[in-house]
Amino acid sequence: MSKPIRVIQYGLGAIGRAAARLVLEKNSLQLVGAVDAAPQFVGRDLGDVLGLGRELNIKVTGQPGSLLGKKRADAVLHCTGSSFAGEFELFSAIAKAGLHCVSSCEEALYPAWRHPDRAGKLHRICVRHGVGLLGTGVNPGFVMDTLAVMATAVCQEVKSVKVLRVVDAGTRREALQRKVGAGLSEGEFRQLAQELKIRHVGLAESLVFVADALGWNLDAVDESIAPVIADKTVQTQFLKVPKGHAAGVRQIARGLWQGREVLTLDLQMYVGAPTPRDEIILDSTPPMHVVIPGGTAGDFATPAILVNCLPRVVEAKPGLHTMKTIALPHVIF
Amino acid sequence: MSKPIRVIQYGLGAIGRAAARLVLEKNSLQLVGAVDAAPQFVGRDLGDVLGLGRELNIKVTGQPGSLLGKKRADAVLHCTGSSFAGEFELFSAIAKAGLHCVSSCEEALYPAWRHPDRAGKLHRICVRHGVGLLGTGVNPGFVMDTLAVMATAVCQEVKSVKVLRVVDAGTRREALQRKVGAGLSEGEFRQLAQELKIRHVGLAESLVFVADALGWNLDAVDESIAPVIADKTVQTQFLKVPKGHAAGVRQIARGLWQGREVLTLDLQMYVGAPTPRDEIILDSTPPMHVVIPGGTAGDFATPAILVNCLPRVVEAKPGLHTMKTIALPHVIF
Repeated sequence: MSKPIRVIQYGLGAIGRAAARLVLEKNSLQLVGAVDAAPQFVGRDLGDVLGLGRELNIKVTGQPGSLLGKKRADAVLHCTGSSFAGEFELFSAIAKAGLHCVSSCEEALYPAWRHPDRAGKLHRICVRHGVGLLGTGVNPGFVMDTLAVMATAVCQEVKSVKVLRVVDAGTRREALQRKVGAGLSEGEFRQLAQELKIRHVGLAESLVFVADALGWNLDAVDESIAPVIADKTVQTQFLKVPKGHAAGVRQIARGLWQGREVLTLDLQMYVGAPTPRDEIILDSTPPMHVVIPGGTAGDFATPAILVNCLPRVVEAKPGLHTMKTIALPHVIF
Repeated sequence: MSKPIRVIQYGLGAIGRAAARLVLEKNSLQLVGAVDAAPQFVGRDLGDVLGLGRELNIKVTGQPGSLLGKKRADAVLHCTGSSFAGEFELFSAIAKAGLHCVSSCEEALYPAWRHPDRAGKLHRICVRHGVGLLGTGVNPGFVMDTLAVMATAVCQEVKSVKVLRVVDAGTRREALQRKVGAGLSEGEFRQLAQELKIRHVGLAESLVFVADALGWNLDAVDESIAPVIADKTVQTQFLKVPKGHAAGVRQIARGLWQGREVLTLDLQMYVGAPTPRDEIILDSTPPMHVVIPGGTAGDFATPAILVNCLPRVVEAKPGLHTMKTIALPHVIF
């Protein structure tokens, strides 16, 4: 067996902590550092922060500069911001330090779309320093994009792609229930949606990623967001949604090409959703229909795919990657 | 756009002809040659053999040697034998001619298992000549192996994998209905199964491919084959299955590791199968369940995945590949 990949965990929010715990369980990975600027974490032992009941002799630092410069790691697991522009300087610093990177940054799934110049620049930095960088996750990163692209592998021709993800937010953590607007009045919801405070980041990136794989140079990308209104009162472990209030959100991204809607990504996250699932429908030869009944559980699956992609990025050609330029991701051990 | 990949179609059976027709539809591919030793094809124009109603100015040859030596192609689409040992000399000749290869040879899905020495030798030949070789298809190649491996990408841990493929052979071509033993008496079926004349080649390769991805060094691989007995008379377009006779075949491959059955691939192909589907069930964190209702239609899907993998092999590092060492396959254009 080859030497473990030495990993720095960057960001210790819920996903970052789960990812760090998972890194510890993998023989092919070794956790060697942790970065988070939050005052409640800085200076503490990571084992303590993760609630392991044992010390890891890894002190959480708020000063990434020193850690990145030491060359005692191979890769960074980046779990902080959603904006590629916002993380661009950090991504560049990670690459210049000679470190590979897998990131949960939603816009990093397909950064060449919103930020072609920065994406090109980061690609060149990665190549120059011999490292790879990939943005991934469950959504964006898997169920509404990569899996749909993979389903086309058995198709002679694809005319359109529809992906539906229905999440029963009532089964998820409180932060997610609040994030999707559950319990708000319709007016409050629409106000927050307009302020982009209720919004799934990355749906448009998923859309453009799929379009690119299929060779569809879209004429237009359209996104809409609306509340799902509760038709009866719903009570979750954390909050109450009165009848007529928002139970959550429905966000739809559409891709138009040659006058047709060729791509539709329909994301519904609300408390009380009756048949949660991920579903891919290809109008294709042969027709393809893929269903994940119950849906893919993001809280567990997101740290998993981030961790599982680490070896795939390390072994790939240097550069800014997408999920279609690395080898098949799978659970690692 | 980069130059088209110049392709030689090797083998003009049903799959090979469908693959050749598909190559003609792809801008990124160019059909430049065709090989088949069958007397009814040799010397004829390929357009005629494919029933296109137009000439392609490609003469089918039974003498691959001359064609391979000319260096006027980039890749071979190989659609003949199922046995890796049987095709080994040809694969070596293709690689030595500096040609990439995608093959429908079932045992080539994971040749390192039955033929580690030959697989190692072929890998070295590929590397030396700067080309890649991949065995793939729908089954083996996609629904019972690659897709299952991909589903583990969102898992923190996987305890077991079950894959079920149920094909209603009654909807397929006559050759397949005969191949699965539909209409035979139970005795005739068991006799032919014993002579390996009724057998899906590649199920064990799928199993070992999945096990390898998951890091399971299996203690034992077990395969069983039995008839599915018709509980009522079934009439298809091509044949009749009397009640009590074989409607088709059920073949199961099992992988044991550390005293447990960790892997089960259950393939059922019979006329009148009531709920055809492909189904993947992972005992994992999070649990994953993937269903393709109706199943993946092999007659259309097999040529598709062969053709779609060509660019992925050409762009990959030289060597003997598997579906987990190339980048994400998807429909090409």
